[in-house]
Amino acid sequence: MEFSRYNSSHSAAPSAPELPPDSYDHQYHQPQQSYYGQPQAPASRPSSSNWQSGGFPAGTEPGVVRAFQMVDRDRSGFIDEHELQQALSSGYKRFNLRTIRLLMFLFKNPHDSLRIGPAEFAALWSCLAHWRAIFERFDRDRSGKIDSMELRDALYSLGYAVPPSVFQVLISKYDNGGGKAELDFDSFVECLMIVKGLTDKFKEKDKGYTGSARLSYDSFLCMVIPFLVSYD
Amino acid sequence: MEFSRYNSSHSAAPSAPELPPDSYDHQYHQPQQSYYGQPQAPASRPSSSNWQSGGFPAGTEPGVVRAFQMVDRDRSGFIDEHELQQALSSGYKRFNLRTIRLLMFLFKNPHDSLRIGPAEFAALWSCLAHWRAIFERFDRDRSGKIDSMELRDALYSLGYAVPPSVFQVLISKYDNGGGKAELDFDSFVECLMIVKGLTDKFKEKDKGYTGSARLSYDSFLCMVIPFLVSYD
Repeated sequence: MEFSRYNSSHSAAPSAPELPPDSYDHQYHQPQQSYYGQPQAPASRPSSSNWQSGGFPAGTEPGVVRAFQMVDRDRSGFIDEHELQQALSSGYKRFNLRTIRLLMFLFKNPHDSLRIGPAEFAALWSCLAHWRAIFERFDRDRSGKIDSMELRDALYSLGYAVPPSVFQVLISKYDNGGGKAELDFDSFVECLMIVKGLTDKFKEKDKGYTGSARLSYDSFLCMVIPFLVSYD
Repeated sequence: MEFSRYNSSHSAAPSAPELPPDSYDHQYHQPQQSYYGQPQAPASRPSSSNWQSGGFPAGTEPGVVRAFQMVDRDRSGFIDEHELQQALSSGYKRFNLRTIRLLMFLFKNPHDSLRIGPAEFAALWSCLAHWRAIFERFDRDRSGKIDSMELRDALYSLGYAVPPSVFQVLISKYDNGGGKAELDFDSFVECLMIVKGLTDKFKEKDKGYTGSARLSYDSFLCMVIPFLVSYD
Protein backbone atom coordinates (compact mmCIF):
# COMPACT_ATOMS: atom_id res chain seq x y z
CA MET A 1 0.00 0.00 0.00
CA GLU A 2 1.97 2.91 -1.32
CA PHE A 3 -0.08 5.35 0.64
CA SER A 4 1.40 4.56 3.99
CA ARG A 5 4.61 6.16 2.72
CA TYR A 6 2.85 9.50 2.96
CA ASN A 7 3.07 9.34 6.67
CA SER A 8 6.76 8.73 7.16
CA SER A 9 7.97 11.32 9.63
CA HIS A 10 11.28 11.51 7.75
CA SER A 11 9.68 12.25 4.42
CA ALA A 12 9.98 15.67 2.83
CA ALA A 13 6.46 15.33 1.42
CA PRO A 14 3.81 17.67 2.79
CA SER A 15 1.66 16.43 5.64
CA ALA A 16 -2.08 16.94 5.57
CA PRO A 17 -3.25 20.20 7.11
CA GLU A 18 -5.31 20.11 10.29
CA LEU A 19 -8.88 20.51 9.13
CA PRO A 20 -11.82 20.69 11.53
CA PRO A 21 -13.61 17.31 11.37
CA ASP A 22 -16.69 18.62 9.61
CA SER A 23 -15.13 21.22 7.34
CA TYR A 24 -15.28 19.00 4.26
CA ASP A 25 -18.93 18.07 4.59
CA HIS A 26 -19.84 21.63 5.35
CA GLN A 27 -18.03 22.89 2.26
CA TYR A 28 -19.39 20.15 0.03
CA HIS A 29 -23.02 20.70 0.84
CA GLN A 30 -23.13 24.43 0.79
CA PRO A 31 -24.88 26.00 -2.22
CA GLN A 32 -22.81 27.22 -5.16
CA GLN A 33 -21.61 30.75 -4.56
CA SER A 34 -20.67 31.67 -8.14
CA TYR A 35 -20.78 30.26 -11.62
CA TYR A 36 -17.60 28.28 -10.97
CA GLY A 37 -18.99 26.32 -8.04
CA GLN A 38 -17.68 26.34 -4.51
CA PRO A 39 -15.29 28.93 -3.13
CA GLN A 40 -11.70 28.14 -4.03
CA ALA A 41 -9.15 26.48 -1.81
CA PRO A 42 -6.55 29.00 -0.64
CA ALA A 43 -3.94 27.95 -3.20
CA SER A 44 -2.81 31.21 -4.69
CA ARG A 45 0.57 32.82 -4.20
CA PRO A 46 0.79 34.76 -0.90
CA SER A 47 1.04 38.53 -0.97
CA SER A 48 4.51 39.99 -0.77
CA SER A 49 3.89 41.86 2.50
CA ASN A 50 4.74 40.51 5.96
CA TRP A 51 7.77 38.32 5.46
CA GLN A 52 9.61 36.35 8.08
CA SER A 53 13.29 35.49 7.89
CA GLY A 54 14.53 33.27 5.07
CA GLY A 55 12.13 34.71 2.51
CA PHE A 56 9.03 32.94 3.88
CA PRO A 57 5.75 34.82 4.37
CA ALA A 58 5.00 35.65 8.02
CA GLY A 59 3.18 32.80 9.72
CA THR A 60 4.69 30.06 7.56
CA GLU A 61 4.59 26.83 9.57
CA PRO A 62 8.01 25.67 10.79
CA GLY A 63 7.35 22.33 9.06
CA VAL A 64 7.21 24.07 5.68
CA VAL A 65 10.49 25.87 6.37
CA ARG A 66 12.11 22.57 7.35
CA ALA A 67 10.66 20.90 4.22
CA PHE A 68 12.15 23.67 2.07
CA GLN A 69 15.54 23.14 3.64
CA MET A 70 15.35 19.40 3.02
CA VAL A 71 14.22 19.80 -0.59
CA ASP A 72 16.82 22.48 -1.40
CA ARG A 73 19.62 19.94 -1.60
CA ASP A 74 22.19 22.25 -3.16
CA ARG A 75 21.45 24.98 -0.56
CA SER A 76 20.88 27.54 -3.33
CA GLY A 77 17.86 29.08 -1.60
CA PHE A 78 15.72 28.00 -4.56
CA ILE A 79 14.03 24.78 -5.62
CA ASP A 80 14.48 23.52 -9.17
CA GLU A 81 12.29 20.95 -10.92
CA HIS A 82 14.58 18.04 -10.16
CA GLU A 83 14.75 18.87 -6.45
CA LEU A 84 10.98 19.12 -6.35
CA GLN A 85 10.54 15.86 -8.23
CA GLN A 86 12.93 14.11 -5.87
CA ALA A 87 11.14 15.48 -2.80
CA LEU A 88 7.66 14.55 -3.97
CA SER A 89 8.73 11.16 -5.28
CA SER A 90 10.24 10.28 -1.90
CA GLY A 91 6.96 10.96 -0.14
CA TYR A 92 4.58 9.70 -2.80
CA LYS A 93 4.83 7.33 -5.73
CA ARG A 94 7.22 8.77 -8.32
CA PHE A 95 5.93 12.05 -9.74
CA ASN A 96 5.99 12.54 -13.49
CA LEU A 97 8.27 15.41 -14.56
CA ARG A 98 5.34 16.77 -16.57
CA THR A 99 3.28 17.20 -13.40
CA ILE A 100 6.27 18.82 -11.67
CA ARG A 101 6.70 21.33 -14.49
CA LEU A 102 3.01 22.14 -14.45
CA LEU A 103 3.16 22.68 -10.68
CA MET A 104 6.18 24.95 -11.00
CA PHE A 105 4.58 26.83 -13.89
CA LEU A 106 1.46 27.58 -11.85
CA PHE A 107 3.26 28.55 -8.64
CA LYS A 108 6.50 30.16 -9.81
CA ASN A 109 7.26 33.84 -9.86
CA PRO A 110 6.53 34.97 -13.46
CA HIS A 111 9.99 36.56 -13.64
CA ASP A 112 11.91 33.40 -12.77
CA SER A 113 11.09 30.53 -15.02
CA LEU A 114 13.31 27.73 -13.80
CA ARG A 115 12.99 27.63 -10.02
CA ILE A 116 10.81 28.63 -7.08
CA GLY A 117 11.76 30.55 -3.94
CA PRO A 118 10.55 30.18 -0.34
CA ALA A 119 7.25 32.06 -0.76
CA GLU A 120 6.22 30.10 -3.86
CA PHE A 121 7.34 26.88 -2.21
CA ALA A 122 5.20 27.59 0.86
CA ALA A 123 2.12 28.16 -1.33
CA LEU A 124 2.79 25.06 -3.42
CA TRP A 125 3.46 22.89 -0.38
CA SER A 126 0.32 23.90 1.48
CA CYS A 127 -1.75 23.45 -1.67
CA LEU A 128 -0.36 19.94 -2.16
CA ALA A 129 -1.06 19.12 1.48
CA HIS A 130 -4.64 20.28 1.02
CA TRP A 131 -5.03 18.20 -2.14
CA ARG A 132 -3.49 15.18 -0.48
CA ALA A 133 -6.06 15.41 2.30
CA ILE A 134 -8.84 15.59 -0.30
CA PHE A 135 -7.35 12.66 -2.22
CA GLU A 136 -7.13 10.54 0.92
CA ARG A 137 -10.70 11.36 1.82
CA PHE A 138 -11.92 10.04 -1.53
CA ASP A 139 -9.57 7.06 -1.65
CA ARG A 140 -11.83 5.20 0.71
CA ASP A 141 -10.21 1.80 0.37
CA ARG A 142 -6.68 3.28 0.73
CA SER A 143 -5.61 1.70 -2.55
CA GLY A 144 -3.68 4.80 -3.62
CA LYS A 145 -6.13 5.32 -6.53
CA ILE A 146 -9.43 7.08 -7.06
CA ASP A 147 -11.93 6.54 -9.87
CA SER A 148 -13.58 9.07 -12.15
CA MET A 149 -16.68 9.64 -10.02
CA GLU A 150 -14.48 10.25 -6.99
CA LEU A 151 -12.39 12.67 -9.04
CA ARG A 152 -15.51 14.57 -10.06
CA ASP A 153 -16.61 14.82 -6.43
CA ALA A 154 -13.10 15.84 -5.36
CA LEU A 155 -12.95 18.59 -8.01
CA TYR A 156 -16.34 19.81 -6.90
CA SER A 157 -15.29 19.86 -3.26
CA LEU A 158 -12.31 22.01 -4.31
CA GLY A 159 -14.57 24.47 -6.07
CA TYR A 160 -14.38 23.27 -9.68
CA ALA A 161 -17.60 22.43 -11.50
CA VAL A 162 -16.23 20.92 -14.72
CA PRO A 163 -18.87 20.39 -17.44
CA PRO A 164 -19.54 16.66 -18.08
CA SER A 165 -18.31 16.71 -21.70
CA VAL A 166 -15.01 18.28 -20.66
CA PHE A 167 -14.71 15.92 -17.75
CA GLN A 168 -14.97 12.94 -20.11
CA VAL A 169 -12.09 14.28 -22.19
CA LEU A 170 -10.05 15.08 -19.10
CA ILE A 171 -10.24 11.56 -17.70
CA SER A 172 -9.82 9.80 -21.07
CA LYS A 173 -6.06 9.81 -20.64
CA TYR A 174 -6.27 7.87 -17.39
CA ASP A 175 -8.36 5.05 -18.80
CA ASN A 176 -6.90 1.75 -17.61
CA GLY A 177 -7.87 0.09 -20.89
CA GLY A 178 -11.18 -1.27 -19.65
CA GLY A 179 -13.08 2.00 -19.99
CA LYS A 180 -12.56 2.79 -16.32
CA ALA A 181 -10.32 5.66 -15.23
CA GLU A 182 -8.04 5.23 -12.25
CA LEU A 183 -5.90 8.05 -10.94
CA ASP A 184 -3.02 7.90 -8.52
CA PHE A 185 -2.03 11.05 -6.62
CA ASP A 186 0.34 12.21 -9.40
CA SER A 187 -2.48 12.05 -12.00
CA PHE A 188 -4.91 13.63 -9.55
CA VAL A 189 -2.53 16.59 -9.11
CA GLU A 190 -2.10 16.83 -12.89
CA CYS A 191 -5.89 17.00 -13.39
CA LEU A 192 -6.26 19.61 -10.69
CA MET A 193 -3.44 21.70 -12.18
CA ILE A 194 -5.10 21.69 -15.59
CA VAL A 195 -8.53 22.57 -14.22
CA LYS A 196 -7.23 25.08 -11.66
CA GLY A 197 -4.82 26.73 -14.11
CA LEU A 198 -7.40 27.21 -16.86
CA THR A 199 -10.18 28.24 -14.46
CA ASP A 200 -7.98 30.83 -12.74
CA LYS A 201 -6.95 32.29 -16.11
CA PHE A 202 -10.55 32.46 -17.26
CA LYS A 203 -11.76 34.05 -14.04
CA GLU A 204 -9.21 36.84 -14.47
CA LYS A 205 -11.18 37.77 -17.60
CA ASP A 206 -14.61 37.26 -16.00
CA LYS A 207 -14.44 39.76 -13.17
CA GLY A 208 -18.18 39.54 -12.47
CA TYR A 209 -18.11 35.74 -12.20
CA THR A 210 -20.87 35.49 -14.81
CA GLY A 211 -19.54 32.35 -16.46
CA SER A 212 -18.55 33.98 -19.73
CA ALA A 213 -15.99 36.49 -20.93
CA ARG A 214 -15.08 38.36 -24.10
CA LEU A 215 -11.55 37.44 -25.15
CA SER A 216 -9.41 38.87 -27.88
CA TYR A 217 -7.50 36.42 -30.05
CA ASP A 218 -4.25 37.74 -28.55
CA SER A 219 -5.39 37.32 -24.96
CA PHE A 220 -6.75 33.84 -25.72
CA LEU A 221 -3.33 32.78 -27.05
CA CYS A 222 -1.61 34.46 -24.08
CA MET A 223 -3.79 32.49 -21.67
CA VAL A 224 -3.24 29.13 -23.25
CA ILE A 225 0.16 28.96 -24.95
CA PRO A 226 2.25 29.30 -21.75
CA PHE A 227 0.28 26.34 -20.47
CA LEU A 228 1.07 24.22 -23.50
CA VAL A 229 4.69 25.26 -23.56
CA SER A 230 5.27 24.46 -19.90
CA TYR A 231 3.61 21.15 -20.40
CA ASP A 232 6.55 19.56 -22.06
CA MET B 1 23.18 17.81 -43.70
CA GLU B 2 20.08 16.06 -42.54
CA PHE B 3 17.93 17.86 -45.02
CA SER B 4 19.11 15.94 -48.04
CA ARG B 5 17.25 12.96 -46.58
CA TYR B 6 14.01 14.72 -47.47
CA ASN B 7 14.64 14.09 -51.09
CA SER B 8 15.19 10.37 -51.09
CA SER B 9 12.89 8.94 -53.72
CA HIS B 10 12.34 5.85 -51.54
CA SER B 11 11.18 7.83 -48.55
CA ALA B 12 7.56 7.70 -47.40
CA ALA B 13 7.81 11.34 -46.33
CA PRO B 14 5.67 13.80 -48.24
CA SER B 15 7.23 15.61 -51.16
CA ALA B 16 6.76 19.33 -51.61
CA PRO B 17 3.69 20.29 -53.60
CA GLU B 18 4.11 21.91 -57.01
CA LEU B 19 3.70 25.60 -56.34
CA PRO B 20 3.87 28.22 -59.10
CA PRO B 21 7.27 29.95 -58.80
CA ASP B 22 5.87 33.23 -57.55
CA SER B 23 2.98 32.02 -55.41
CA TYR B 24 4.85 32.43 -52.16
CA ASP B 25 5.96 36.01 -52.76
CA HIS B 26 2.53 36.89 -53.99
CA GLN B 27 0.91 35.47 -50.88
CA TYR B 28 3.45 37.01 -48.53
CA HIS B 29 3.08 40.54 -49.78
CA GLN B 30 -0.63 40.72 -50.16
CA PRO B 31 -2.44 42.83 -47.56
CA GLN B 32 -4.03 41.16 -44.54
CA GLN B 33 -7.50 39.91 -45.37
CA SER B 34 -8.80 39.42 -41.84
CA TYR B 35 -7.78 39.95 -38.25
CA TYR B 36 -5.80 36.71 -38.30
CA GLY B 37 -3.52 37.72 -41.14
CA GLN B 38 -3.17 36.00 -44.48
CA PRO B 39 -5.66 33.47 -45.81
CA GLN B 40 -5.07 30.02 -44.42
CA ALA B 41 -3.27 27.18 -46.12
CA PRO B 42 -5.75 24.52 -47.26
CA ALA B 43 -5.11 22.21 -44.34
CA SER B 44 -8.55 21.31 -43.11
CA ARG B 45 -10.20 17.93 -43.39
CA PRO B 46 -11.75 17.35 -46.84
CA SER B 47 -15.52 17.11 -47.13
CA SER B 48 -16.99 13.65 -47.14
CA SER B 49 -18.47 13.91 -50.65
CA ASN B 50 -16.72 12.73 -53.81
CA TRP B 51 -14.65 9.76 -52.75
CA GLN B 52 -12.44 7.65 -54.91
CA SER B 53 -11.70 4.00 -54.20
CA GLY B 54 -9.82 3.06 -51.03
CA GLY B 55 -11.48 5.76 -48.94
CA PHE B 56 -9.49 8.66 -50.42
CA PRO B 57 -11.24 11.86 -51.51
CA ALA B 58 -11.64 12.21 -55.28
CA GLY B 59 -8.59 13.79 -56.84
CA THR B 60 -6.13 12.52 -54.24
CA GLU B 61 -2.71 12.35 -55.85
CA PRO B 62 -1.50 8.81 -56.56
CA GLY B 63 1.65 9.64 -54.54
CA VAL B 64 -0.44 10.17 -51.42
CA VAL B 65 -2.23 6.85 -51.92
CA ARG B 66 1.14 5.12 -52.35
CA ALA B 67 2.47 6.88 -49.24
CA PHE B 68 -0.54 5.68 -47.24
CA GLN B 69 0.08 2.11 -48.36
CA MET B 70 3.75 2.34 -47.36
CA VAL B 71 2.96 3.89 -43.96
CA ASP B 72 0.16 1.43 -43.17
CA ARG B 73 2.58 -1.38 -42.38
CA ASP B 74 0.07 -3.71 -40.79
CA ARG B 75 -2.36 -3.25 -43.75
CA SER B 76 -5.18 -2.35 -41.37
CA GLY B 77 -6.45 0.47 -43.59
CA PHE B 78 -5.68 2.91 -40.78
CA ILE B 79 -2.54 4.68 -39.57
CA ASP B 80 -1.69 4.65 -35.88
CA GLU B 81 0.71 6.98 -34.10
CA HIS B 82 3.64 4.60 -34.27
CA GLU B 83 3.23 4.00 -38.01
CA LEU B 84 3.08 7.75 -38.56
CA GLN B 85 6.13 8.36 -36.40
CA GLN B 86 8.07 5.69 -38.25
CA ALA B 87 7.10 7.12 -41.63
CA LEU B 88 7.97 10.72 -40.76
CA SER B 89 11.16 9.77 -38.96
CA SER B 90 12.39 7.88 -42.01
CA GLY B 91 12.00 10.92 -44.22
CA TYR B 92 13.01 13.58 -41.72
CA LYS B 93 15.03 13.64 -38.53
CA ARG B 94 13.23 11.59 -35.85
CA PHE B 95 9.84 13.06 -34.97
CA ASN B 96 8.93 13.44 -31.33
CA LEU B 97 5.91 11.32 -30.34
CA ARG B 98 4.40 14.48 -28.84
CA THR B 99 4.38 16.16 -32.25
CA ILE B 100 2.89 13.01 -33.80
CA ARG B 101 0.05 12.94 -31.26
CA LEU B 102 -0.64 16.60 -31.81
CA LEU B 103 -0.75 16.03 -35.58
CA MET B 104 -3.12 13.11 -35.18
CA PHE B 105 -5.27 15.05 -32.71
CA LEU B 106 -5.72 17.91 -35.17
CA PHE B 107 -6.37 15.76 -38.23
CA LYS B 108 -8.16 12.72 -36.89
CA ASN B 109 -11.86 12.01 -37.17
CA PRO B 110 -13.36 13.15 -33.84
CA HIS B 111 -15.03 9.76 -33.43
CA ASP B 112 -11.85 7.72 -33.72
CA SER B 113 -9.21 8.77 -31.29
CA LEU B 114 -6.36 6.39 -31.92
CA ARG B 115 -5.83 6.24 -35.67
CA ILE B 116 -6.46 8.09 -38.92
CA GLY B 117 -8.03 6.81 -42.12
CA PRO B 118 -7.25 7.59 -45.79
CA ALA B 119 -9.09 10.94 -45.93
CA GLU B 120 -7.45 12.28 -42.78
CA PHE B 121 -4.09 10.97 -43.93
CA ALA B 122 -4.43 12.75 -47.28
CA ALA B 123 -5.15 16.06 -45.54
CA LEU B 124 -2.32 15.61 -43.03
CA TRP B 125 0.15 14.56 -45.72
CA SER B 126 -0.57 17.48 -48.02
CA CYS B 127 -0.43 19.89 -45.10
CA LEU B 128 2.97 18.52 -44.07
CA ALA B 129 4.21 18.79 -47.64
CA HIS B 130 3.11 22.41 -47.73
CA TRP B 131 4.84 23.13 -44.42
CA ARG B 132 7.97 21.36 -45.56
CA ALA B 133 8.12 23.60 -48.62
CA ILE B 134 7.73 26.67 -46.38
CA PHE B 135 10.39 25.39 -43.99
CA GLU B 136 12.84 24.77 -46.82
CA ARG B 137 12.22 28.21 -48.20
CA PHE B 138 13.18 29.79 -44.88
CA ASP B 139 16.08 27.46 -44.15
CA ARG B 140 18.24 29.41 -46.54
CA ASP B 141 21.55 27.80 -45.62
CA ARG B 142 20.05 24.28 -45.77
CA SER B 143 21.22 23.59 -42.20
CA GLY B 144 17.98 21.82 -41.28
CA LYS B 145 17.17 24.58 -38.77
CA ILE B 146 15.45 27.93 -38.81
CA ASP B 147 15.74 30.72 -36.26
CA SER B 148 13.01 32.66 -34.47
CA MET B 149 12.77 35.48 -37.00
CA GLU B 150 12.45 32.97 -39.81
CA LEU B 151 9.76 31.16 -37.83
CA ARG B 152 7.85 34.40 -37.38
CA ASP B 153 8.01 35.07 -41.12
CA ALA B 154 7.04 31.48 -41.89
CA LEU B 155 4.01 31.67 -39.57
CA TYR B 156 3.01 34.92 -41.19
CA SER B 157 3.34 33.45 -44.66
CA LEU B 158 1.00 30.64 -43.55
CA GLY B 159 -1.58 33.11 -42.33
CA TYR B 160 -0.80 33.33 -38.62
CA ALA B 161 -0.08 36.72 -37.09
CA VAL B 162 1.02 35.71 -33.59
CA PRO B 163 1.31 38.64 -31.13
CA PRO B 164 4.96 39.34 -30.16
CA SER B 165 4.49 38.54 -26.45
CA VAL B 166 2.94 35.15 -27.28
CA PHE B 167 5.62 34.50 -29.86
CA GLN B 168 8.31 34.98 -27.22
CA VAL B 169 6.68 32.38 -24.97
CA LEU B 170 6.19 30.02 -27.89
CA ILE B 171 9.84 30.00 -28.90
CA SER B 172 11.22 29.96 -25.34
CA LYS B 173 11.13 26.17 -25.33
CA TYR B 174 13.43 25.99 -28.35
CA ASP B 175 16.13 28.19 -26.85
CA ASN B 176 19.49 26.58 -27.48
CA GLY B 177 20.79 27.90 -24.17
CA GLY B 178 22.38 31.00 -25.62
CA GLY B 179 19.15 32.99 -25.85
CA LYS B 180 18.76 32.05 -29.51
CA ALA B 181 15.97 29.74 -30.66
CA GLU B 182 16.67 27.13 -33.32
CA LEU B 183 13.97 24.88 -34.70
CA ASP B 184 14.31 21.74 -36.73
CA PHE B 185 11.38 20.56 -38.86
CA ASP B 186 9.87 18.55 -35.98
CA SER B 187 9.81 21.64 -33.71
CA PHE B 188 8.56 23.80 -36.58
CA VAL B 189 5.62 21.42 -37.09
CA GLU B 190 4.95 21.43 -33.34
CA CYS B 191 4.81 25.25 -33.28
CA LEU B 192 2.52 25.34 -36.27
CA MET B 193 0.23 22.73 -34.73
CA ILE B 194 -0.11 24.76 -31.55
CA VAL B 195 -0.76 28.02 -33.40
CA LYS B 196 -3.00 26.47 -36.07
CA GLY B 197 -4.95 24.37 -33.56
CA LEU B 198 -5.69 27.25 -31.20
CA THR B 199 -6.37 29.75 -33.99
CA ASP B 200 -8.80 27.40 -35.74
CA LYS B 201 -10.65 26.78 -32.48
CA PHE B 202 -10.85 30.50 -31.77
CA LYS B 203 -12.05 31.33 -35.27
CA GLU B 204 -14.93 28.89 -34.88
CA LYS B 205 -16.17 31.22 -32.12
CA ASP B 206 -15.36 34.42 -34.03
CA LYS B 207 -17.55 33.97 -37.09
CA GLY B 208 -17.14 37.59 -38.18
CA TYR B 209 -13.34 37.45 -38.00
CA THR B 210 -13.33 40.50 -35.72
CA GLY B 211 -10.42 39.33 -33.57
CA SER B 212 -12.44 38.74 -30.42
CA ALA B 213 -15.13 36.37 -29.22
CA ARG B 214 -17.38 35.85 -26.23
CA LEU B 215 -16.69 32.47 -24.69
CA SER B 216 -18.48 30.68 -21.91
CA TYR B 217 -16.33 28.99 -19.27
CA ASP B 218 -17.55 25.61 -20.51
CA SER B 219 -16.71 26.32 -24.15
CA PHE B 220 -13.29 27.71 -23.15
CA LEU B 221 -12.48 24.46 -21.33
CA CYS B 222 -13.86 22.43 -24.26
CA MET B 223 -11.56 24.29 -26.66
CA VAL B 224 -8.41 23.90 -24.65
CA ILE B 225 -8.53 20.71 -22.57
CA PRO B 226 -8.55 18.27 -25.52
CA PHE B 227 -5.42 20.05 -26.67
CA LEU B 228 -3.68 19.60 -23.34
CA VAL B 229 -4.81 16.02 -22.99
CA SER B 230 -3.61 15.00 -26.45
CA TYR B 231 -0.32 16.67 -25.76
CA ASP B 232 0.98 13.90 -23.64
